[in-house]
Parts: sequence; structure tokens; C-alpha cells
Amino acid sequence: MILDKVNSPDDVKKLSAAEMSTLADEIRGFVIKKVNTISGHCGPNLGIAEATIALHYVFNSPKDKFVFDVSHQCYPHKFLTGRKEGFTNPENYFLYTGYTAPEESEHDMFKIGHTSTSVSLATGLAKARDMKGEKYNVIAIIGDGSLSGGEAFEGLDNAAVLGTNIIIVVNDNDMSIAPNEGGLYKNLKELRDTNGQAECNFFKSLGFDYLFIDDGNDIEKLINGFNKVKDINHPVIVHIVTEKGHGLKAATENKEMFHWIMPNTLDENNEIVKSQDSSGEDWNSITKDYILNKIKDDNSVVVVNAGTPGVFGFDANYRKLLGSHYVDVGICEEHAVAFSSGIAKGGAKPILNVMSSFIQRTYDQLSQDLCLNNSPITLLIWWGGISGADATHLCTFDMAMMGNIPNLIYLAPTNKEEYLGMLDWSVNQNKYSTAIRVPTCGLNSTGIKDITDYSNEINKFKMVKEGEKIAVIGLGNFFNLGKKVVEEIKNKLDIDATLINPRFITGIDKDMLDGLKANHDVVITLEDGELNGGFGEKIASYLGDSDVKVLNYGANKEFTDRNSLDELYSRYRLTTSQIIADAVKCLKVGV
Amino acid sequence: MILDKVNSPDDVKKLSAAEMSTLADEIRGFVIKKVNTISGHCGPNLGIAEATIALHYVFNSPKDKFVFDVSHQCYPHKFLTGRKEGFTNPENYFLYTGYTAPEESEHDMFKIGHTSTSVSLATGLAKARDMKGEKYNVIAIIGDGSLSGGEAFEGLDNAAVLGTNIIIVVNDNDMSIAPNEGGLYKNLKELRDTNGQAECNFFKSLGFDYLFIDDGNDIEKLINGFNKVKDINHPVIVHIVTEKGHGLKAATENKEMFHWIMPNTLDENNEIVKSQDSSGEDWNSITKDYILNKIKDDNSVVVVNAGTPGVFGFDANYRKLLGSHYVDVGICEEHAVAFSSGIAKGGAKPILNVMSSFIQRTYDQLSQDLCLNNSPITLLIWWGGISGADATHLCTFDMAMMGNIPNLIYLAPTNKEEYLGMLDWSVNQNKYSTAIRVPTCGLNSTGIKDITDYSNEINKFKMVKEGEKIAVIGLGNFFNLGKKVVEEIKNKLDIDATLINPRFITGIDKDMLDGLKANHDVVITLEDGELNGGFGEKIASYLGDSDVKVLNYGANKEFTDRNSLDELYSRYRLTTSQIIADAVKCLKVGV
Repeated sequence: MILDKVNSPDDVKKLSAAEMSTLADEIRGFVIKKVNTISGHCGPNLGIAEATIALHYVFNSPKDKFVFDVSHQCYPHKFLTGRKEGFTNPENYFLYTGYTAPEESEHDMFKIGHTSTSVSLATGLAKARDMKGEKYNVIAIIGDGSLSGGEAFEGLDNAAVLGTNIIIVVNDNDMSIAPNEGGLYKNLKELRDTNGQAECNFFKSLGFDYLFIDDGNDIEKLINGFNKVKDINHPVIVHIVTEKGHGLKAATENKEMFHWIMPNTLDENNEIVKSQDSSGEDWNSITKDYILNKIKDDNSVVVVNAGTPGVFGFDANYRKLLGSHYVDVGICEEHAVAFSSGIAKGGAKPILNVMSSFIQRTYDQLSQDLCLNNSPITLLIWWGGISGADATHLCTFDMAMMGNIPNLIYLAPTNKEEYLGMLDWSVNQNKYSTAIRVPTCGLNSTGIKDITDYSNEINKFKMVKEGEKIAVIGLGNFFNLGKKVVEEIKNKLDIDATLINPRFITGIDKDMLDGLKANHDVVITLEDGELNGGFGEKIASYLGDSDVKVLNYGANKEFTDRNSLDELYSRYRLTTSQIIADAVKCLKVGV
Repeated sequence: MILDKVNSPDDVKKLSAAEMSTLADEIRGFVIKKVNTISGHCGPNLGIAEATIALHYVFNSPKDKFVFDVSHQCYPHKFLTGRKEGFTNPENYFLYTGYTAPEESEHDMFKIGHTSTSVSLATGLAKARDMKGEKYNVIAIIGDGSLSGGEAFEGLDNAAVLGTNIIIVVNDNDMSIAPNEGGLYKNLKELRDTNGQAECNFFKSLGFDYLFIDDGNDIEKLINGFNKVKDINHPVIVHIVTEKGHGLKAATENKEMFHWIMPNTLDENNEIVKSQDSSGEDWNSITKDYILNKIKDDNSVVVVNAGTPGVFGFDANYRKLLGSHYVDVGICEEHAVAFSSGIAKGGAKPILNVMSSFIQRTYDQLSQDLCLNNSPITLLIWWGGISGADATHLCTFDMAMMGNIPNLIYLAPTNKEEYLGMLDWSVNQNKYSTAIRVPTCGLNSTGIKDITDYSNEINKFKMVKEGEKIAVIGLGNFFNLGKKVVEEIKNKLDIDATLINPRFITGIDKDMLDGLKANHDVVITLEDGELNGGFGEKIASYLGDSDVKVLNYGANKEFTDRNSLDELYSRYRLTTSQIIADAVKCLKVGV
């Protein structure tokens, strides 16, 4: 294997073009095996193998600096920079992150997992280089949907006038995660169709020098092109056309499906395994069913998402069923929020879907475009909660970020019927900017339809079980934990504790909290997210002048990184035994 | 006066072109008088008078929908939509906001004050219109620097593929608030220089139809142009060239200075009043002096801001002194944060300046691009605090938004020396992503240089006066309020209360808080910002299981709107008498 000879970028420079092509195939083979075993980004890494090799052949990392946008396409880069054993040896599959990570290698400049940041970061590197009088190439590698994010445009707009060396490789694989949306992608197509010669050229309009490489999976063409721009003294775009999923038939024929795959997607012949019948209900399916039903009698419902339909189970078939009721704006969450606010002001009913980690991109849009205007939208936040995710994709922060924005109603359902009740209420009301945190716990059902008019119960908690001494407030995903704590308190302490479902993340029920003072020594809050700035602290503050003690439980303020849930729950004292041990200390009369 | 006849858009439609030109001049006269009396946006409103009149002449508001980006140029629109008495009668100068406000008029679609949002909001309106089968024009009016914001690009990228009517008027006055920066503005210049014919056309590259109007202060040309695009069935850009400050010599000759002016900037002949000597020190001047001194021995310092140098006192002379040490990236705060992170990773020393209200645009960049990477930047947050500002420009939320982001060190100095000490420490260290909330209180000086190495004191509060029973923790701007409370407690209750300067917004000093338990009944926290999600709640939570009571003071979670500080302080119980009254109730032994 050629790969056996390659332990660093220097080794790449010793290879012939033919050997490099073989190396790309070898890398792809290992990538496919790994992601088909433990899951991971597939198509992006298959497509960029040749370009990565050519970059390391032409440039001198780490002196020259590569910045991979979103960095889910950095696997080949990891092969070439001393980390191949993370792919070749299944025992080491979990050794390295799926993203660039400076703690792993001097060849990684930044920890990156959100899109559209590379050009700005690279422009900063270039500015530092210029101030320090140093000389090296700064290369941002962007594409695969990241160009539609506003931050990428802001970066391009400024990089264009930097006046010194910066090389921006646009990896154009004609795909976002889902198919590309937006005017810019039409221009990329025009440029591809004209071999880079089209009169309208987005990049040139911003003032960039521009180089087009028609086959970004051809090592020699890439090397020629990169050599042309190496050590260039001004900003340049290198537009390379690659094939997402290159080298794997199943992936090139199913680009969206193979962006990121689950274990055992492929059989031993690299054919797609027929998926098992997934007729079971889950949070995705009941959301999709609700929407399909709703659009039957309301033509004004518009389902919006920002380039990640797979997160919500919006597959191609479903999108077809929705027709004009469906809008994928591409990867641009800020626009998605403002666009939805506009839809609502125009008298229609937007249902905006965003993954918790990515709603972080929209604080100001939520505040100014949405809540300051009280636009009645329904915002579904998916995957929110403490998780074992990579540090770049944590979903721990949405409640602390959104929970303090005025006017927003952020709801935390605890079971299927409550979720659907909140969803239906939100879609039908026209007064509140509403968000719902779609649960990540199992789809538990009460069997009793929720027809609550939440407009009449804003910030009213639900008393599930009235007890004494200890009150447990279990928010959203953690309501079930609260229930268990109450059961265990009964078992262990023979105390009938109170159990409360707060329902509202964005407000507190002062009447109910005041009512607890008479016969409770301690109030326990449980939330599946960052504690600082979150839900429970508001209760601690409200009860701060009372004799009732308060114990808040949730995640620490930290970026965790692929930690197990058990480890995190234990660290955060989120186990029933830890919680009860703490509570006992707060009881006025020993038990 | 023509204006006497104009009470609604219908009245505009009855005017001749000559009358409309006169009307524009009349409007300008009143605008100048008003902003020179009570302050306000000057240049933007002078430049857009003709365009606004022409828009109302050609289109039918409110059936057709106007969305003014940033909306600080909406004064002429207010004249024409029933609100002229807010300008013509000095007694009504404070009747209307300086921005569009739906509660004032059916002709205002949104409450807008941050830039770059109009195209997204308008695209949403258009989508709602199409879903509901309605027919009207949707017109976004953007320019004056707003185009460089990423959200504007995201909006344009999507508007371009809407497929139905949307008209985007680009008001190109060759200025941002400060001079324009970035590649896009070079393209606008090229388009201006070629009468819209340049081969490279940013808007066409995105797929827009495009119309160029060379004189956007010529009523007839504007009417002709707008008539061409009225009821168009696809997305179109109307690029109009206006003169910022049109009709006022002082303003056209000093565009940046006249973007927004203070009272009495002009004399009765509309000449600039010679400004009084402002040699006194303030937070701006000591920051500027520090930086000038610093760059003498450190070539790697880079001062960054995003299009609002005036907020920081970075006038043209000062910018010249900084030379390559100064970068104005234009209005694009997200890029500014990521760019600064890149500068730091490249080994140089960025000092990024952002107004509190606008840092809201960067939650994810602070989290992902900056703090996840621990890039050692210095971020100065200006104007943070409870204020009498318009609802769109509140600076109340920065601590709650930034305070819960992992890894960030956010400092709250309380006097001149502490501020300079923190600034110097931050610039010279290379370990922490650091922000400093520049005080808004008076520039009080201790006379004692602060040489604290804050690296050794992360999250350590400063015990200013050790006392008993009541501990007052006064954060940043509110340290002085805390001092007053302690003094009053001595006077009124004869209690020697404890006074603490916490210094750190982003962490709590557990040791010191534990130490208070022995001889304190109550801890009082004071913060000049939103209480929810803020500093004090963390202390209430930490002390939740102790016998010490906690009283948190700060702003309610609400968008206030031009309320007086007295009114707000009283509403938030932020007066010494209110605080002491609350504290007395928490004392264990009556006094």
C-alpha cells in the first residue's frame, strides 16, 4: 500500500501522480470501512481525497496554514498528518475527532464544526502573518454548502480586500448536505457549465482573482492549479469541481443519504443494505404526520429548515408531499429565522426546524427580527440536551441562550400528547413567538390528548403530584428523571415529594413557587442543558429571600467532547442517588 | 408648504414632480432642525428623501409592503405616513421612535434597528403572500452599509430564487456609517462608474434582474425606474445612487460625522459649530491612549471594529495614527469575531471593539470560533448597561448572552485603573479569550495603578470592605451603587455591611461566598444588565442550599423603549432605599 509509506506531508511530496491517485483510493477504502462501522461523514471525505493530497503536495503544512471549513471533510487530511491509524486500525476508530482539532496535530489550526467560518478565520491568520512580517500561504477550503452562510460572505467580502496572500479553495460538489439552494449555487453551476468563463462570476464581482479547475478529483490538474497560486501576493479563489462520494457508487448515486452514514449502511460489496421497516413512531414521524395533516386544511403553513432536513426526517419523498409548503433555505440559520418572522407577519404560519447546536447562530435574529416583533412563528428545536457529541456539535446551550430573550415562549414538552398539544397550539395562535424543544427522550405516550390553550396558562407550571418537604421540578427531557427521584424519595425516605412539570422554559410560576413555601424545605430543579443562565437558576433567584432551599441540576458550563452520558450525568450529580443525598441535607428535620 | 397638503401616501400621489422635489427639501429642513435639537440620524435621512417620496408615489403602501433596512433612514417615510407632526412640532419631537415601528403606523411592517435584516424579512412577507394567493409588491430598501452583514447576503441568496415579486432597492450612498469596506463595495463603485454596465455585477451573479438609476435624488428618474419594476413577477435589484447628507453642505462634506449628530452641531446658518475643546479624559480617550502607547513596542497589536468607529472615538485622525494596526471590517460582527480569533491564532494581538447591542449578532462566533479555540483576544464591549435607548438598541443583554459561554473570561472593571489594568493584562496574556465590559459610569480614578495578574486570580472576587450580616456584591457599573448601599446601611441600620467587587462576570468565587455564610444573613447582587441568565442568579443558585438569603437586582427580561433611567431603576428596585427595605426583611434578628 502507498499509505504505508505516508506518515507526514513530507512523504506525500515524494509520491508520483499515479501513486497519489492510488493513495486517494486507499484512503477512501478505509474511510468507507470506518464510517460504515462507527458512523461518520462519508461523501464529503470521499470527494476531497485528491484535493487534500494535492494541497499537501504543493503547500508546506504546518508552515502554510490550512483551514477546513466545517471540517467534516478533514479525514484525508488526518491520514496525511500522522493520524492514519485512527482509520486503518478499528481499535483506534475513536482516537481522533471527526473534525480538525489542534490538540491532535500541529497541522490543524482550529477546532471547527459549524459551517461558514473558514474564510474569516483564515483572513485573521493572514493579517497576523502580515503584521508580524512573516511569509506563508493561508489556504481556506470551503464548500459543500458552507458558502451560503452569511459569515462566509462576510469573510469573503473582507478577504477580497486583504491585499496580500490568501487562497480560498471552493470545493464545489454541487451539494450542500441536502441539494443546494440559493442564487449563489446557480452561479456556481453557470461557472461549471462554462468552464469558469461565465460573464457573471460571484467571486470576481467581489474582486477576487479566480482560477477554475474542472476536475477536482484529478491529481495532476489540482497540482498544476495549486502551483499557480502558491505564494500568490493577493487574494485568489480556486474553484474546484469535485464529486461528492467519489469512488463509491452508492454514495455518488445517493449524495444526500451518504453525507453522513450510520453503521451498517453498506454490505460487504458496498451495496446499500435494505433498511429495515421503520414504521415505528418517533418524534420525527409524529411531527411529520402532524404537518401533513395540518396542511390539508391550512394552505398557509410553511415548513422551513436551513440545509439539514435529515435531522428532522424530511426525506425527499416527504419534501415532495409538502410541495410549496416546504422551504429549505440552505445553510443560513439567520435568514431562516428572519424569513420565518416575515412569513408570520405576512399572515402565514411558519414552522421552523433547527438543531439545537445551530440555533446558536441566531441569537440576534431571535431577539430583533423575531421576538421584538412578536412574530407568531413555531420554532422546533431538535436534539437539545446533554449528549456525547463532539465539542463542536453540543446541544447543551440552547435553553441558556434562548431562555433569556424577552417575549419568547420556549416550551418543554414531556410526552407525545403534550408535544403535539403544544405544537398545535403554537401553530394556531397568532400572538407569541414560540419555540418548542422537541424531546430527545423516548416517545412516551399518556394516551390522553392535550387540548390545553397555553395562551391562558403562560408560565403556569403543572402540578403533577402534590406532596410535601421536597418538590421536584423536572423540565422537559428530565421530567422522567424527576419522577424517578420522587419515587426513590418515597422508597428511601418515606416522604411524599411534590412533582412538577414546568412546561415553560422561559418563565417561572411565582404562584406555585410561593405555594411551596408553606410545607416544603427544598425545591429541586432538573434541566437537560447548561445550568448557568438556564431554567433552575431563575427559581433559585426567585426563592432566594425565602426559607426554602433550592438545588439546581444541569450541565456545567463547559465544552464536553465525546464523553459518555453516564460520565456526564455522574459529573453533574444527575443521578437519583446523588440528588437524594443532596436533598436530605436540606431537610429541616432529619429523617 | 407642500408638506401641509401631505398627510398620507395618497396625498403624495397628487403632487407634480416639481412639488415632490420641493417636498423633499421641506422634509430635509425639518429633519435638520429636529436632529440638531434632540440628536438623531441626519445624513441617511437627507439622502433618501426623494427616493422615499418616489416609492410612495409609485407603490401603494400599506397594501404594498416596504421594509426599511436598519430603518434609521425612515424619517421621510414617517413624514408621508401621518407622522409629520413628530418633526414639524418641537413639542412632539419625542412622539415617535427613530425607527420603523408597527405600533405607530400600518405603513411600518417591522420594528427594526439592527442592520442587514430587510431582505430576509421581505422574502418572508413575499412567501406568505404567495402561499395565501395574494398580490402585492414587497419592497426592501437596503444600503448605507447594511449589505456587508452576512444576514443580508443570506437574504439575497434566497430572495434571488424566490421566483416571484420582490423588489430590493439598494440605496448606494458610497458610505457605511464610516467609509465602506470590503469587496462588495468595490463592485458597487464599479457599477456606479459604468452606469450599471460593468461586466462583474454582484447582484446579477446571484441571479437577480437589475436596474440602475444613476441619480437617486432625482424624483423623475426614480419614478420612471420604480414604475418599471412595479408588479414585476420575479426578483429585481434597483440600484440607486444617492448622496448621503443631500441638501446640507456640512453633511455632504462630512459624511461620517453627520451620520448621526448631537444637539447643536449646527449653528443657525447650518454651519458646523466649532466643537468645544474636549481634552478631558473619558473611557474612549484612555482606551485610545493605551492602544497608541502599546503599538509603540508591539507591532502585532491589531485594533478591529465592525463599521462603528464613532462609538469608540476612533475618528479619522486616530485611525491614521494606527495605520495597519487598524482594521474596520465593515458592518459584519460575525466576521469581526472570527477574524480576531484568526489573528490571535496567528500569534498577533487583536483588540476587538463592539457595542453591546451588536455583539448579540455573534453568539455562535464567540462560542465556536473564539472560545472553543481559546483564542486569546481582547474584546471590548461598549455601552453595556441599562439605558434609555430605543427598543432596537438596548445594551442590556450582553452579560446574559456572553456570560454562559464556556471558556470566556468576561471582566467588569469599576474604575479607570482597574480597567487599564485588565486591558493591559488581557492584551499581554495568551491563554484566555477575554472580554472587558467598558464601564459607562463616570471615569472615576483611584490613582493607584492596577498591576494585578488576573491569570492568577480567575474568578476571584475582591473583598473591598469586610463586614457582617449583609454582603453587597456590586458588579462593574453598579459597584458604586453597591458602595452607596453599604454606606446607607451603616447610616440607617448601623450595620457594617460587606462590600465586594466581583470583577469577573463569568464565574463566581466559591471560597469567598462560602466565607460569607458564617456571619452574613443576606447577600445582595447588583448588575447593570438583564437579571435572567446573568451574574446574580449564579450566586443565588450556589447559595441555594445554604441559610444565607440572596437578593438579585438587575433589569427585568423585557425590551424597554426610551424609558428614563430613573423609571427603570425604580421599576427594577435598583434604588438604595428599595434595596435596603428588601434586605431588612432578610435579616435574622430585627434591627
